[in-house]
Order: sequence, then C-alpha cells, then structure tokens
Amino acid sequence: MEPYFKKLTIIGVGLIGGSLAMALRKKGMVGEIVGVGRSISNLELAVKLDVIDKFTTDPAAGVMGADLVVVATPVASMAEMMKKIAPYLKEGALVTDVGSVKGAVVKEAEKLIPSGVYFIGGHPIAGTEESGVCAAFPTLFEKNRCILTPTAKTEREALKKVKEIWEAAGSEVILMDAEKHDSILAAVSHLPHVIAYSLVNTVDDVKDFEESILSYSAGGFRDFTRIASSSPEMWRDICLLNRDAIIDMITRFEKSLTKLKGYIKESNGHEIFKEFDRSKKARDSIVKK
Amino acid sequence: MEPYFKKLTIIGVGLIGGSLAMALRKKGMVGEIVGVGRSISNLELAVKLDVIDKFTTDPAAGVMGADLVVVATPVASMAEMMKKIAPYLKEGALVTDVGSVKGAVVKEAEKLIPSGVYFIGGHPIAGTEESGVCAAFPTLFEKNRCILTPTAKTEREALKKVKEIWEAAGSEVILMDAEKHDSILAAVSHLPHVIAYSLVNTVDDVKDFEESILSYSAGGFRDFTRIASSSPEMWRDICLLNRDAIIDMITRFEKSLTKLKGYIKESNGHEIFKEFDRSKKARDSIVKK
Repeated sequence: MEPYFKKLTIIGVGLIGGSLAMALRKKGMVGEIVGVGRSISNLELAVKLDVIDKFTTDPAAGVMGADLVVVATPVASMAEMMKKIAPYLKEGALVTDVGSVKGAVVKEAEKLIPSGVYFIGGHPIAGTEESGVCAAFPTLFEKNRCILTPTAKTEREALKKVKEIWEAAGSEVILMDAEKHDSILAAVSHLPHVIAYSLVNTVDDVKDFEESILSYSAGGFRDFTRIASSSPEMWRDICLLNRDAIIDMITRFEKSLTKLKGYIKESNGHEIFKEFDRSKKARDSIVKK
Repeated sequence: MEPYFKKLTIIGVGLIGGSLAMALRKKGMVGEIVGVGRSISNLELAVKLDVIDKFTTDPAAGVMGADLVVVATPVASMAEMMKKIAPYLKEGALVTDVGSVKGAVVKEAEKLIPSGVYFIGGHPIAGTEESGVCAAFPTLFEKNRCILTPTAKTEREALKKVKEIWEAAGSEVILMDAEKHDSILAAVSHLPHVIAYSLVNTVDDVKDFEESILSYSAGGFRDFTRIASSSPEMWRDICLLNRDAIIDMITRFEKSLTKLKGYIKESNGHEIFKEFDRSKKARDSIVKK
C-alpha cells in the first residue's frame, strides 16, 4: 500500500513544488497541504488553484506537525532553509528536496537535519522554462525520471517512502550517489545551458554589420537557444554549486570542438562527416526511445 | 504586375525546391513545372503530389526552354550542376539557387552561366529537419526571410524578378553581398550546428559510468540538440564551402566560453549572472518580435 501523509508541507510553491503537490493530491496520498513561500500573492494563487490548502510565509510554522516536507526553493537557498526548519521538524518526519545539484545540498542537509528525522535528496528530471505556480500541472513528472541520492546514513524505510512518492507522481525512480548525479547532470543539462548562454552572447557580440544579426536567426537557432531564456539566477547558482563537474564537462566539450575545428580548418570532409554522423546517430537514438 | 513564367524547372525536388514549386503554382505565377532529380521514385511522388507536372533525370533536357530555373540541389553539387545545364539554357532564362552558402556558389555560377542568361544567388532562411518532397508545403517561406546576393554583374531586371518570386512565396526579401551573407549565416546557423554536433559527441563520449548518460537527457537537451539530427552530408558540405567564416565564428565562441569558464572556475557569481542575464535578454528579444 502506498504511504499516506496526513500533512504535506511544500516549501517553494513553484513549477516543481506545485506540480508535486497536485500529483500527490490527485493520487490521494496526502491529507492537508501547506505551502510555504515568500510571495503572498503567489501563495494566494496556489490556494485559489487548489494546489495547496493553506500557507504561511514562516518556514518554522509551516513545517510543524508535517509528516512530509518537500524543499523546492532555489537550490542555492536550500541549506539555509534546512537550517531554519530543522528545529521545528516533528519526530519521524520525512524531508526531501528537488534541487538540480545534489552533492552540496545532501552534504549540508545531512549535517543540519536532526536525528529522528529522515532526509533523502531528490531531483526530478522534469521542468519547463516556465516558473511559478501558474505553470504547475499534475502530470509534469509522468514518464520522467527522478533521481534519489541516498547515502550511508539513509534509513531504508525512509528511502522506500520517498521512492513511492515519486512513483505515485508517475516517475521512474533511479538511485545513485550524489556525485554521480552531479557529473551526469553537468553533462546533459548544465553544460548545454552554459553553451546556450555563451552562444547567444557570441552571436549578439558580432558587431561587424549595422544591424543586429540575431534578426537573421531562424527556427533552428530559436530552438537551440531556448534554454538560454532560463532563469539567470538559477543557473548562476547551479554553476556555483556544481562548479567542478561543470568545469570538467566544459573542458571535455572544448576538446571535442577543437578537434572538429581542426578538421574544418584542414577541409577534412571525411572526418567532419564521421563526427557529424555519429552525433546524429547518438541524438536520434535518444529521441526514438 | 507579377512576372509569369511559362516553364519553371526545379532541379532538386526536395523540401525547399518542392515547397517553392507549390508556392509559385498556388500564386498562379507559373505554367508548366518540370522537376529534375536523380531519384525516380521521389520524382514520381512529386508528380502524384502535384508539386511538379513532369520530370526528367537529365538536367540538360530539363532546363531546355525553361524561363526560370531554380537549382535546389545539395550546395556542394551546385557548381557541377551549373556546368551541366549552362549550355542548354535558353536566351533570357533566369537562374537562381537556394544554397545556404553563397560566396562559393555565386562565384562559380557567374563563371559558368553564359551571357544572355541571368543568375541571382538566393537563400531562403527556412527549413525543417525533414527532407524530401513529402516534407514540402506551400507556406514554408511565409513570413521568413529570403536573402538575395546580387553582384556587380547582376542585371537589374533579373534581380527584380527573382525578388518578386520570393515575395510571392511570402518571404521578406533582403539584399546583401555574398560575403556578408556567409558571415551572418556562419553565426546564426552554421556555428550552432557545429556546436550541437560537438555537444552530443561530448556527452556520448562520457564513459565514466556503466550506462549511457544520454538516457538522462530531458526535454531541454533534446530541443537543444535537435539540429544535431540534421543531414551530416549537408552540414559537412556547408563546413567545407563556408570554412573561413565558420572557423572565425568558432574562434569567437571559444573565447566567449573560455571567459565564462573562468568566471565559473573562480566562483564569480556576479560575472556569471551578468553573462547569463544579457544572454537571456538577447534571446528573449528575438522571440518576442
């Protein structure tokens, strides 16, 4: 039988936190849902949209008596939030997060969460460029993966429960250690964002002509750079928190690009084709799944 | 009054050539449409889809008597095609192309096209990852730009006619020299393709874990790398034909990425934010237009 949480507290009622609340409510897995946030208008909207039942701007008050606490604030403020709520968590409470960087968050959380309370780091691989509770919808996590990052300290029963939460939301749950998570996400998510931001700036910096050449961009460029419209604050924080893995991936990418540039420079059509062809095959393989 | 062409020959009845034929037929600008290609099954399909009226696999036979010839073959084979058709073009015929590289193509074409025949280089900034006549549709060019690249040799009346063709197809026509075209396209199109191919290879090359990490990619990565599913042959040829402008743009991008990497390395949140923020603003500006 799936677990049932009498009181769920969502700290940060945005796209991710709001969508999880909606999914768990739909599955009948939660009783009361309390939202915690800083923007009263956003929280009022969340009540109106039936995402949460009530709210408070005080994290301490919000988590009192909660069986399940989901920290869905920006990743850079998670450690601070854990510190704020730690003394008010009830014995046996389950705490999890949804941050896109896990090493730094899990390390801090395990230091701060008191004994008798269970913490599991989590990261649903889902999202859109949209943010805020208006963008939330209950099927956001369906058919997506959610990575949980247990440690040596993790209590087995607690892990099982958090796993069931995400499975109820429709996700395939994958367990791995936080460091591996951070390397993989640096490659498939953080590196592409850094590249997209950098590419748009490169093109915007071309001042060789009177007009802005960005106006000549077509659909391909627009799709390719869609992720450069993501929140600069959020991506700055991810770069700071997952610095080493991101630097490592940028270095690997630089080597790959340098090799390709060399082939283009020497007009080596054979090697250019080989590089493009294996890339197309790898890319097609992820789409056809 | 818009020009009327009694006989239009499309060499290469694929996405671009086929869509232009459909658009011009819809506007009543052409009489008979002849398709030239190598694949008989594709040409038969084009007849069945009413894109062309008849076809031949012999370019010489195809262009005889044509008032307008549109060369829509892969960009690397355009010069050879011009050579093949040049002796058979009728006096006063108008020849244009749709290649994504203009400098090399225009130079060759002006050498090969005989006097009494008029050539104008063109490049409609439109397309999808799809190819072949099945992907063609008559509104492909609507609201997109088409760049024409006249030279000192260009006959004014011929330029006017080609401009009217593209305007009839729904495009905004822009005139510029071929070199400028190639620089701009290197930035907004060729560089992103090179980067996308290189990024997918970088991620695919991460062999630190048992499983392929590409399986962890989410929607952002898939959109970002969609253009890596484009034809490797076509993009190899573009890299070879527009080599210098592409190398220049890769170098500019490398500098931008190196700067950003430096900020990440030194955990300089202020500068990282500034870079991401201006990128987001530039990117948002092209979408909101």
